[in-house]
Amino acid sequence: MVRLEHIKEIVNPTPSKIVLLVLDGLGGLAHQKTGLTELESAKTPNLDRLAKESICGMLEPVGLGITPGSAPGHLGLFGYDPLQYTIGRGVLAALGIEMELEDGDVAARGNFCTMNGDGVITDRRAGRIPTEQCAELCRLLDGTSIEGVKISVAPVREHRFAAVFRGKGFSSALGDSDPQRDGLPPKDIEPLVTGIAKSARIANKFIAQTKQALSGREPANMVVLRGFAKYPPEIPSMREAFGLKPAAIAAYPMYRGLARAVGMDNLPAGNTVEDEFFTLAEHYKTYDFFFIHVKQTDSAGEDGDFQRKVKAIEEVDRALPRLTSLKPDVIVVTADHSTPAMFKGHSWHAVPCLLYSKWCRPDAVTAFSESACIGGALGRFNAAELMPLMLANALKLKKYGA
Amino acid sequence: MVRLEHIKEIVNPTPSKIVLLVLDGLGGLAHQKTGLTELESAKTPNLDRLAKESICGMLEPVGLGITPGSAPGHLGLFGYDPLQYTIGRGVLAALGIEMELEDGDVAARGNFCTMNGDGVITDRRAGRIPTEQCAELCRLLDGTSIEGVKISVAPVREHRFAAVFRGKGFSSALGDSDPQRDGLPPKDIEPLVTGIAKSARIANKFIAQTKQALSGREPANMVVLRGFAKYPPEIPSMREAFGLKPAAIAAYPMYRGLARAVGMDNLPAGNTVEDEFFTLAEHYKTYDFFFIHVKQTDSAGEDGDFQRKVKAIEEVDRALPRLTSLKPDVIVVTADHSTPAMFKGHSWHAVPCLLYSKWCRPDAVTAFSESACIGGALGRFNAAELMPLMLANALKLKKYGA
Repeated sequence: MVRLEHIKEIVNPTPSKIVLLVLDGLGGLAHQKTGLTELESAKTPNLDRLAKESICGMLEPVGLGITPGSAPGHLGLFGYDPLQYTIGRGVLAALGIEMELEDGDVAARGNFCTMNGDGVITDRRAGRIPTEQCAELCRLLDGTSIEGVKISVAPVREHRFAAVFRGKGFSSALGDSDPQRDGLPPKDIEPLVTGIAKSARIANKFIAQTKQALSGREPANMVVLRGFAKYPPEIPSMREAFGLKPAAIAAYPMYRGLARAVGMDNLPAGNTVEDEFFTLAEHYKTYDFFFIHVKQTDSAGEDGDFQRKVKAIEEVDRALPRLTSLKPDVIVVTADHSTPAMFKGHSWHAVPCLLYSKWCRPDAVTAFSESACIGGALGRFNAAELMPLMLANALKLKKYGA
Repeated sequence: MVRLEHIKEIVNPTPSKIVLLVLDGLGGLAHQKTGLTELESAKTPNLDRLAKESICGMLEPVGLGITPGSAPGHLGLFGYDPLQYTIGRGVLAALGIEMELEDGDVAARGNFCTMNGDGVITDRRAGRIPTEQCAELCRLLDGTSIEGVKISVAPVREHRFAAVFRGKGFSSALGDSDPQRDGLPPKDIEPLVTGIAKSARIANKFIAQTKQALSGREPANMVVLRGFAKYPPEIPSMREAFGLKPAAIAAYPMYRGLARAVGMDNLPAGNTVEDEFFTLAEHYKTYDFFFIHVKQTDSAGEDGDFQRKVKAIEEVDRALPRLTSLKPDVIVVTADHSTPAMFKGHSWHAVPCLLYSKWCRPDAVTAFSESACIGGALGRFNAAELMPLMLANALKLKKYGA
């Protein structure tokens, strides 16, 4: 497969514009009554017209049978093979709740948990305390400094939180304190490489301080940490890898965080798809790659609400002329994964994809849907192959080899 | 993906015949008036009849979005993954102008350039001197010997030339003298590994001699060298890799050179496609694999001449019975890349491919064209997967595994 090092040889920046419109969880499964998926049930005259002028196919987010989380689902669309490139769990957790991360920060995931008088963890989830209580406890722990390292703590959901360690030389090569099952004491955090004893000491001091601060607050009288990871992740930015000047228009923190992790600027997303397209128009001159994220399709799918997902797709379709009227050189409409309403969750199914450009060589597909895109000229292809194709259609790649 | 080491295990030479007919740059884009590509516009009753009896698909020369140069485009068709196997720039340049290369020769690309009195290069291209002048200067430099190494120099185009160093132990692990931009002095050629100081010294002496020889010949008063590479390239021959006895019928030096680099014998190509097929018939008994190259389709595409490309395709179609009447066990018709007349250059678009054999299991495709082949049983597949399929259909591969 074509890899980043091959692309790097032939990158040829130009002012041409690429718009990648991601309808999160778009792929669906047929409704029992109609035999049609959500996308096939929706009235989408604008998407269908675009599909007719496009080259279409079924995009495989990670690989056959693999249900992607949001991070691998999007990394693939951004041009990074999700089997090769990952973002550390700690960083993902912190980005997901939009904590401010600076270069060199180290982030970890944390749980509030219950420890008994013998120092044994009896419940790694502290009875799944409500998110509000988690937030209150995080305020208690947030902002402490140990040996010059500042530690920020913020709630995720229920018993989960994220912790960010900021200080010169603080290393992410640290083991977990989380023993991963009840009935064991928390582990000391161990340095995984030599020369970082100070980082391990600071992390262990933080846990000791925390234990004191939480004393008497059963069931949440202790914390465990895991998944220490350095920000930024070891992924070349989209500018380095593809010569792009990219921007993201996404409302939800997780996607803004993912975009930022690969070097995109985040623009205001507003509250509706129309707002997102307004932002696109407003900043159109400043960037040459736009990632626009629509969350409603996924949320409706997760809730098992077939009709709401249909309506979310139709809302995108109605707003679409605002996007196409800007006449981007390349338009792609696709998804990071399937979230069939019938399935009520992410699934492994391939997702429909259309790519429009003046040079795309349209195929015979005349509707944007799962069943139509199967017959498209792109066939079934890997998400990470999309970026070279977008770049080529925007004339941003030179010839490979003599 | 199946790799050469897998194939090597199951190679099973037989006298059966494979003919690979490459219409260079065949893939096209639709004409604005008709909505048909060059191939779809051409009257091709013979190719269509063959497609009907064949298994068809869209061949991806390198990868989605990647526009191949001639070398990677052909290496893929010859069975070598062009992302894994490359031919050094110097060797390609020398092969491209049909210089005689012997095993162990080292070739480099060169530029005539302009150097000022301070030893700074003011124009790396010597004002793009005409090719005739380049040829005259090359004659001046050609044939010198330094410390037992004979150096041949031949013109490529404008300011470009190729230099071949022939002598026992001469190494290709040499840096460039070309500083890659104006305003800098040429670099000394450095050995890139230990133990080859003599090779670097000889290369630097050659440049010093050349400087003297060109004294006063402004703007071409100096040379720079780059891309030193050993012949033959580090690619197993088609005999080693596939057990084939292969021959090439190609008129243009670049393709004859590429064929030679993978161990094919070059046969006389004459002036027309018919001549090529005559040569095929004449040497049919001597070889079991024939690569036939048709350049006219690519040249017309590069010139943006839609109608001339259509006519070039029709000429191949008219001559085709001469090929099919030999009843090769396997016939493949495809291309090394697309050169759409509308695009006036190589492009990234997949190319149509048909494979005929008694055992091919024909699909529903009844015409040889881009839009028809999309629906073929091969789908979209990588160029380097074609060779195992040709070998299999010629019954030249044994079972893999017990």
